[in-house]
Amino acid sequence: MLWQTLRYLRSLFAFKKYAILAALILILLVLLLIQKDDSVVECDTNIRSLYDIPPEVQEQLKKQWLSEQNQLNPQKVLPDEPPNQDANPPPVAPLECLINDDYPVQCLKTTDKDEIVYMPFSFIEKYFEVYGAMKHYDGYDRFEFSHSYGKVINELPTPYTYHGMLMSFDTYNVEVRDRVKCVSGIEGVPLSSQWGKHGYFYGIQICQYGLSHYCKNLVQKLPQETVYEDADTIQPVWKQSNKQCITQYVDDPLIRNKVVKFTTPDSIPLGSGLTLHIGNTVERVLSFDIRFVGNGSISVMVDTNDKAKQYTIHYITNNLLLDFDHRSNIFYGIGATQSWRHIARDLVTDLRKGIGLSSTKKKKVKTSITKVTCLIVRGSGFIDNITVSTSQHMSQFQAASDWIVKNQDPESGGWKNDIERVLPGYDPIPPGWLSAMGQGQALSLLSRAYYVYKNESYLKTLALGLLPFTLPSNKGGVQAMFMGKYVWYEEYPTSPSSFVLNGFIYSLIGLYDFKSLLEDQFGMGSENLPADTVTQSERLGVNLPKVYSQASKLFQDGMTSLKAMLPLYDGGTRTFYDLRHFILKIQPKIARWDYHVTHLDQLALMSSISDDPIFQQVFQRWKGYTVGKPSQHN
Amino acid sequence: MLWQTLRYLRSLFAFKKYAILAALILILLVLLLIQKDDSVVECDTNIRSLYDIPPEVQEQLKKQWLSEQNQLNPQKVLPDEPPNQDANPPPVAPLECLINDDYPVQCLKTTDKDEIVYMPFSFIEKYFEVYGAMKHYDGYDRFEFSHSYGKVINELPTPYTYHGMLMSFDTYNVEVRDRVKCVSGIEGVPLSSQWGKHGYFYGIQICQYGLSHYCKNLVQKLPQETVYEDADTIQPVWKQSNKQCITQYVDDPLIRNKVVKFTTPDSIPLGSGLTLHIGNTVERVLSFDIRFVGNGSISVMVDTNDKAKQYTIHYITNNLLLDFDHRSNIFYGIGATQSWRHIARDLVTDLRKGIGLSSTKKKKVKTSITKVTCLIVRGSGFIDNITVSTSQHMSQFQAASDWIVKNQDPESGGWKNDIERVLPGYDPIPPGWLSAMGQGQALSLLSRAYYVYKNESYLKTLALGLLPFTLPSNKGGVQAMFMGKYVWYEEYPTSPSSFVLNGFIYSLIGLYDFKSLLEDQFGMGSENLPADTVTQSERLGVNLPKVYSQASKLFQDGMTSLKAMLPLYDGGTRTFYDLRHFILKIQPKIARWDYHVTHLDQLALMSSISDDPIFQQVFQRWKGYTVGKPSQHN
Repeated sequence: MLWQTLRYLRSLFAFKKYAILAALILILLVLLLIQKDDSVVECDTNIRSLYDIPPEVQEQLKKQWLSEQNQLNPQKVLPDEPPNQDANPPPVAPLECLINDDYPVQCLKTTDKDEIVYMPFSFIEKYFEVYGAMKHYDGYDRFEFSHSYGKVINELPTPYTYHGMLMSFDTYNVEVRDRVKCVSGIEGVPLSSQWGKHGYFYGIQICQYGLSHYCKNLVQKLPQETVYEDADTIQPVWKQSNKQCITQYVDDPLIRNKVVKFTTPDSIPLGSGLTLHIGNTVERVLSFDIRFVGNGSISVMVDTNDKAKQYTIHYITNNLLLDFDHRSNIFYGIGATQSWRHIARDLVTDLRKGIGLSSTKKKKVKTSITKVTCLIVRGSGFIDNITVSTSQHMSQFQAASDWIVKNQDPESGGWKNDIERVLPGYDPIPPGWLSAMGQGQALSLLSRAYYVYKNESYLKTLALGLLPFTLPSNKGGVQAMFMGKYVWYEEYPTSPSSFVLNGFIYSLIGLYDFKSLLEDQFGMGSENLPADTVTQSERLGVNLPKVYSQASKLFQDGMTSLKAMLPLYDGGTRTFYDLRHFILKIQPKIARWDYHVTHLDQLALMSSISDDPIFQQVFQRWKGYTVGKPSQHN
Repeated sequence: MLWQTLRYLRSLFAFKKYAILAALILILLVLLLIQKDDSVVECDTNIRSLYDIPPEVQEQLKKQWLSEQNQLNPQKVLPDEPPNQDANPPPVAPLECLINDDYPVQCLKTTDKDEIVYMPFSFIEKYFEVYGAMKHYDGYDRFEFSHSYGKVINELPTPYTYHGMLMSFDTYNVEVRDRVKCVSGIEGVPLSSQWGKHGYFYGIQICQYGLSHYCKNLVQKLPQETVYEDADTIQPVWKQSNKQCITQYVDDPLIRNKVVKFTTPDSIPLGSGLTLHIGNTVERVLSFDIRFVGNGSISVMVDTNDKAKQYTIHYITNNLLLDFDHRSNIFYGIGATQSWRHIARDLVTDLRKGIGLSSTKKKKVKTSITKVTCLIVRGSGFIDNITVSTSQHMSQFQAASDWIVKNQDPESGGWKNDIERVLPGYDPIPPGWLSAMGQGQALSLLSRAYYVYKNESYLKTLALGLLPFTLPSNKGGVQAMFMGKYVWYEEYPTSPSSFVLNGFIYSLIGLYDFKSLLEDQFGMGSENLPADTVTQSERLGVNLPKVYSQASKLFQDGMTSLKAMLPLYDGGTRTFYDLRHFILKIQPKIARWDYHVTHLDQLALMSSISDDPIFQQVFQRWKGYTVGKPSQHN
C-alpha cells in the first residue's frame, strides 16, 4: 500500500528535470513515514528531512547527480521549436504486410491518394536490430531512433602519450560490472566471475581496473574528501562499547606522526568496539591506514535508499573473500597482515556486491548509500587518516599495479589465467594460459605506474613482460602467425589461432607505451644513447638498449600486421570480432556494438601514433556503420 | 487524346488475371480505331480483331504469356482468407522521429494507451535498402516486403553434369540486356557495349549467350515452328515488285533437295523485290538457309504494339553492324559470304536493339511484335527452309560455340578481350587481356558442344583453352596467388590481384566440365586407361592423358583455394564481390543482390560436385542473408 502510494507519487514526476528533486523528496517522505527501525544505532545523525541538509551540500549533491545523469544520457539536440503535432492526423486503415514471402505484420496505410505505408517500429526494431525510445520533452514527445547502441567518440583524440588518457578508459567502471564478483579486501583488486562463479583474479580485468582509475583521475577534478581522524589535528571522540575499549594517541616511528592506538577485548562481538561517528551524506569512498596486532575488524555502517535500510560492511582480518548474512551484514576478509597498510574501499561497490550474493536473478543491485553513518574498530592495533572521499583513484591504480608486479610468473614473464577458457569451435584452453591483451594492458598500466612512482620493480616487470610476445602461443607464449606471413599477438592462445582484433590492438598499445616510456625516461631510440645508459642498466638490472630494441621490433612487426589485416575485419556493414570464420570455416562472429566501438576507440588511438592514413580512413568508415552507412555495393 | 483514352481504359483493368485479356483487347481497339497507315503494305493479312484469331491459337498465346508472366512474378502464396481490413483503424497522431541524432522523419503513433510507433516505409526502404510494393489481390491489398531483390533458388539442385543445366542459365536472357548492343548479323552472337559504345565481341558474353540458349533448350518444350517455304512440299506464291523479279525451284547438290532460286534487278530499292507472305502472330524467330550470288538483302516487315506501327528489318550483304533510320527501317549487315549458310534471327531482339539506337534515354525499349507480316528477298541467290518459330536455341548455341572456336588465340589459348577494363582502385587493364571466367565459360560451352556435336575442333579448342590457367596473370595468363599459398584464377588480371569470386567459380565449373567430358567420353581418370587412348589421342591431335591430368590438377588446386578462401567473402550480412578491400586496403565491395544470388547459385552447383559440407553450410547461411538473417554477433 505504502509502496503503491510511492510509485504513484513517483509517476507524477514525468519530466527528467524534476526527477532528482522528486527522488530526494521521496527518500525523505519514506524516512518520515516509516517507523524508526530498532536496528538503527545511536550513532545516526539528526538529519531527517531535506531541510536538515545544508543548502550548499544540497546544491553540490544536485550538481553531482545531474552530471552523472548527463553522462548516462547526454543532452539531445532539441529543435528550435517543437514540431507541429496538432496537425490533423491522416486517415489510416489497417494493412497486412507480408515479410519476405514468409510471415505477416500488421501495418497501416493512409487512405488518401498518397497511400503511404507505415510499418510498426516493434517490427523494425526486431528485424533490423535497431533501437528506439519515446522521449518526453517540455510540451511534446519525440521518438529517437538509433542504428546502434554504441556511443562513438566524435573526434579523433589529441596526441596520445604513454602516461596520458587511454582511449575512453575514464568511462569504464570495471568493478561495477556484473562479471566482477567483488573487489578483494586483501588485494584491493577485482575478482572476475565471468568464466567461474567462485571468483578468480583475471589479469586483464585488474589492469583495466587500474587503468580506468588512472584515467578517471586524469579527467576528474580533485576528489572531495573529509578527514574524520588524523590523530594530529583532528581528534574526535570514539564511543566505547564498554570500558575496556580504549583509544590513545601515540607517535609511530614509521608514519612519523601521531596515530590512534586502539584496544578492545577479544570477547566483544563483531560490529561493536570503538565507534567513530561519520555521518557523511556526500562521499562514498572510505580510506584509512591501519596496522593490526592480532585479529580484528573494521565495520562500517551505512544508510541506504532501500527502504532506508541500514547495512554494516565488516572488513575482517581473515582470508574470506565475501559473504552476506542475507539480512544486513556484509563481510570482506582483509587478510592478517600485521604491518601498516593503506586500505581504500568504495563502499557502494562493496555494499552492492554483497547484497548481490543473495539475488538469484541477474538483476543488477541498485541500492545506494544515503549516508556513511559510522565506523567501528574491534581488536588491537593502530589506525590513522580515516577519510571519506568522492574517489581514491590513485589508490586503486596503485593496488592494481602492485598486484601485477606481485603476480607476474617469473619464468614466462606472463600473467597466467588460472581458468579454463572456451571459445566456441575451439578446444578449451586449459588454465594457466597467457593473453597478449593481458600482457599489453599490464605494459600500459605499469608504464603509467613507472611514470608516476618511478618504482624500479615496475620497470623490471615491464621488461620481463615482453617475453611471452616472443614465444608461439602453442608454446606458452602469445605469438601467432597469419598465413606464415604476419605476426600476431593472441588475446586467447587457441589452436588454431583466432586472431581477436581488439585484444591484439591492446597488446600493440602496451608495446607502444613501454617503448615510449623507454624513449622518454631513458633516452632510448635517440641516435646517441645517453652516456649513463650502461650504469643505469646495471643499477636497474634491466638491459635498457636490448629491451628497447625488443619492444620496438615487437611493436613494428605488429603494426605491419595490423595495417595489412585490418580489412579482414571489415564486414561492410559491421565489424568482425575475430577471424574464426576464416580459420574454422564457420560463420563470422560479428562484433557486438560495444566491441565495434572499442575498435573505433582503438583506431582513433592508432591514428594518433601512426602516420598511415588507413587508421583514419577505417575509423571514418566504421563510424559510418554505427549510423547505418554501409560500404558500397556494385 | 486517343492515348489518354487508352491509358484510362488500361487503368480500369487493375487485376493481373484480366491484364492479358485487356492487353489483347486494347491492341485490337487500337487497330480498329486508328486510320490505316499508308506505309502498311498489302501483304498484311486480314486478321483485324480478336475474333479473327483462331481459338486454339488464342489459347496457346494466352498460356505462353501467362507462363512468361509467372516466370517474372512467381505466384505468391495467398492466405486462406483475406485479412480483415474492415477492422476499425486505430486513432493516430503525427510523431516526429529523430534518426541517429541527425535528421527527422515524420512518423505516426497510436493515441491509445499502447502508443505504437509507426515509421513510413519510404524511410525504411531508403535507409535499409529493402524493397516493397503494394499488391492488389481479389478483394484486398497486401504490401509485400522483401529484404532483397534477388530470387534465390530454394533447393540445392539435382546432380550436376557437364552436359546438363548450368546453374540457372535457362533464365538468362543475354541478348536482351542493355549492355548488349545487338546480335551480330555476320557472327550470330551478341556484341557488348558495356565498356565501349561502339560494340565489341566479349567472350564471356558470347559464352553466356550460347550456354543460356543451351539451357533453355534443355528445359523448354520443343519449339513450335511454321515453315513457309521449303521448295519441296511447301511452295507458296512469291509476289513480284516487277516482272523482272523471278523465283524458280531448282535442285541444289549440297542441300540435296529443292531450293528456291531468286533473281531481282540490281536497280530496285531496298525493301522491294520478291515478297513472301508470312502473317505469323505467334512465333518470333525467323530462320532460313541462304546463298547469295552477289549482293542482296532479306527484309522482314513486322507489325508492332507501338501504335500499330510497322517496322522493316533489313538484313543486307555488307559489314554494317546495326543502323536505324529513326523512322521504321532497321539494318543489319550479314556479310558478303557467297556459300550456303543458316541464318536465325530473333526478330524482337533485332527490332528492339534497332529502335534503341534512337533513344537517348536509358529506358528499355519494350516494343513488341504483334505479327511477322512478310519477307522480301532482293538480289540473286538461293533460299530454302523459311521458318518462323518460337525459338532457335540450338542455332544460337552453335553460333556461340563456333565463334569461340574461331576466335581462340592460337598462341595463348585464350579469348582476348580487346577493350580496356577499369576496376576502381586498380590501374586500367589494357586491351588484349584474358579472363579466367572467359576461359571457364568457354570450357563449359564447348564441353556441351562436343557432347552434342562430337566436333573435334571443339575438343582441340578445349585442350588449348587450359593454357592461360597455367600462366600468371601478369604474364598473359589468368593465374594469381593468394598470400603465396592459394592459387586463384582471375576474372580480371589486375595488378595487384582482385580475386573476384564469381568469376573464379565459373572458371572452376569450366575446368570441371572439361575434366568430366574427358572422363565420360574418353574414359580418362579410370584406373585402367582405355586401350585405344594413344590411337584416339593421335587421331584427335590432343594428348588426352596429359590434358586430363592438367585439367584435373587445375580444378583440384582451385577447389582447395575456394574452400579455404570462401569465408573471406562473407560479410556477415552480405557477401563481397572480390577481395579488393584486403588487397588495396579500401572499403569492401559488397556484392549487389544479383551477384549474391549468383554466388548462391554457384555454391549450390559446388555442393553437388564436392563432398565438402562447406558449400551447403555457406549456401544456407548466405541464403539467410537474402531474407535479413545475418550471422551472429557476440
